[in-house]
Amino acid sequence: MRKKNINTDMPVLAYVFINTEAGRAFKVLEAVKKIEGVKDAHTITGIYDIVALVEAADLKDLGEKIVDRVQGVKGVERTVTAVVVE
Amino acid sequence: MRKKNINTDMPVLAYVFINTEAGRAFKVLEAVKKIEGVKDAHTITGIYDIVALVEAADLKDLGEKIVDRVQGVKGVERTVTAVVVE
Amino acid sequence: MRKKNINTDMPVLAYVFINTEAGRAFKVLEAVKKIEGVKDAHTITGIYDIVALVEAADLKDLGEKIVDRVQGVKGVERTVTAVVVE
Amino acid sequence: MRKKNINTDMPVLAYVFINTEAGRAFKVLEAVKKIEGVKDAHTITGIYDIVALVEAADLKDLGEKIVDRVQGVKGVERTVTAVVVE
Amino acid sequence: MRKKNINTDMPVLAYVFINTEAGRAFKVLEAVKKIEGVKDAHTITGIYDIVALVEAADLKDLGEKIVDRVQGVKGVERTVTAVVVE
Amino acid sequence: MRKKNINTDMPVLAYVFINTEAGRAFKVLEAVKKIEGVKDAHTITGIYDIVALVEAADLKDLGEKIVDRVQGVKGVERTVTAVVVE
Amino acid sequence: MRKKNINTDMPVLAYVFINTEAGRAFKVLEAVKKIEGVKDAHTITGIYDIVALVEAADLKDLGEKIVDRVQGVKGVERTVTAVVVE
Amino acid sequence: MRKKNINTDMPVLAYVFINTEAGRAFKVLEAVKKIEGVKDAHTITGIYDIVALVEAADLKDLGEKIVDRVQGVKGVERTVTAVVVE
Repeated sequence: MRKKNINTDMPVLAYVFINTEAGRAFKVLEAVKKIEGVKDAHTITGIYDIVALVEAADLKDLGEKIVDRVQGVKGVERTVTAVVVE
Repeated sequence: MRKKNINTDMPVLAYVFINTEAGRAFKVLEAVKKIEGVKDAHTITGIYDIVALVEAADLKDLGEKIVDRVQGVKGVERTVTAVVVE
Repeated sequence: MRKKNINTDMPVLAYVFINTEAGRAFKVLEAVKKIEGVKDAHTITGIYDIVALVEAADLKDLGEKIVDRVQGVKGVERTVTAVVVE
Repeated sequence: MRKKNINTDMPVLAYVFINTEAGRAFKVLEAVKKIEGVKDAHTITGIYDIVALVEAADLKDLGEKIVDRVQGVKGVERTVTAVVVE
Repeated sequence: MRKKNINTDMPVLAYVFINTEAGRAFKVLEAVKKIEGVKDAHTITGIYDIVALVEAADLKDLGEKIVDRVQGVKGVERTVTAVVVE
Repeated sequence: MRKKNINTDMPVLAYVFINTEAGRAFKVLEAVKKIEGVKDAHTITGIYDIVALVEAADLKDLGEKIVDRVQGVKGVERTVTAVVVE
Repeated sequence: MRKKNINTDMPVLAYVFINTEAGRAFKVLEAVKKIEGVKDAHTITGIYDIVALVEAADLKDLGEKIVDRVQGVKGVERTVTAVVVE
Repeated sequence: MRKKNINTDMPVLAYVFINTEAGRAFKVLEAVKKIEGVKDAHTITGIYDIVALVEAADLKDLGEKIVDRVQGVKGVERTVTAVVVE
């Protein structure tokens, strides 16, 4: 869908909010931090257990990055992604 | 409560918002797209993983279409249905 | 999309969850109870202030009944409708 | 905190909103309808799968009725209770 | 609905979660703390601004206590009540 | 709609969920449908009043399309955007 | 950023909202009440099953207290923490 | 409860999720970015309009920073704070 081009320069930033199985937030955090494209991640209070700031090449890459890597971390139950607009 | 009548012809449109098990959104999407009555479906960012636009013969058919087919897709955890009013 | 037909007879039951302005739940309840098509209504604890069970001739009538009458009650801030499937 | 008395007569009405495992709403509905104290129950569209109107002798009975019977139905994942105030 | 009886003694405990207008949480907190029946109240992080633990004589009194007093505090936008079961 | 050029060309599809002031959903719907980039829009049951499918040139355009046009419609109270990933 | 001081004594109070597996709220409540640092806990109506008021030495201790002990109780599915500000 | 210790230095990091009036997200973003203690802020898709990462000296300072400054920005309707645990 997207033609090859040398220089797109449209990285997509997004916050990924993560809920983990009870008792696994800290371990998931460690694993998430090691995923390529994850720039920052913290355990937080409130309805989500972890928030990660990620950078992807585009929306499709974002979807795959989340699905294939963050969601693949043992103990991740679900993720909600909020794309940075500005 | 509902009188017999031969010809109701009141198709119901609805959006079905789907949450999937972590890591299965793309596979669920492919399967959902093949279900009869599904007119459009996408993976999306935000609190739901997939949204599908479906058409059913009536509310009961809508319930059964969702329950029996969409929810029957491997990896579907829950669905929320919003009926189109206009 | 919807063929003409003389006789639909498909009454739609729905729960209408109502949030009111602070301090107006009991007055809204009284007014909602008087609306035609409202079969039952109560103030409740939890995220909604009032729940009403309504009956409409069809989905369009349901939308108009809510929009024109329930939402027209002074003190109603928003409504969420859940259509009865079975 | 509550002294003994023979005749309190303070029935508590409540709506119990039920989420079921994917694909089990209709079967759960049938089972819930048979529970003593359940006065009405429907499958609905929206974030809950089933709503039941229940009557209990008091709040403690309400809690136990939900916990022991509604939640004991196979396929019930979680319930949210809203107590009727008026 | 509730027959006369001499000795009911069924105080109802409840948590009242309060959202305030932006910038008014601390002032609302001070006012809420002075309301009769409020046993404890704090500003908190997360989706609610204030939580108050209240005690009422019964559910109707609880509704009226919330509606007439907590919701009457200037700056209160909405409240959600969770009744203590045990 | 998507011009060839070496560098970006990534139209973004998104669902925009809209909450309106009580009683204004149908009027907002009419106005939203006329906005450039809105491909489909319906009033729906459930927690949102309207869902619109929109197409934007990129994420920034999406943000501005929503902010400047959909949110500019009289009666729109808030919007939630879900970006289509695939 | 924060000057050195000899005597901090800044215990952190927080409400921990707990969802349990269907049918286990009362048993989880009993177990949660025995956890060190839990000052009060009740089963409640509404979207959470149990609310516990806890006291921790600091935010990190709060996180570990929740993760290691409350979430470790059999039947706890997830927790949401709201930190007391004042 | 917490023993004396010489050197606390415990700045509190938190994410502040902001909802703005329709059409004001970008202007609010600009204003929020200028507030002391705000380290990062973006408009995002999804249920919140803006997320800001803030640093405060302690929880009380966090509450006051949010209440007095972020919530004081014209167009801010409500904020939800998630405290960083680790």
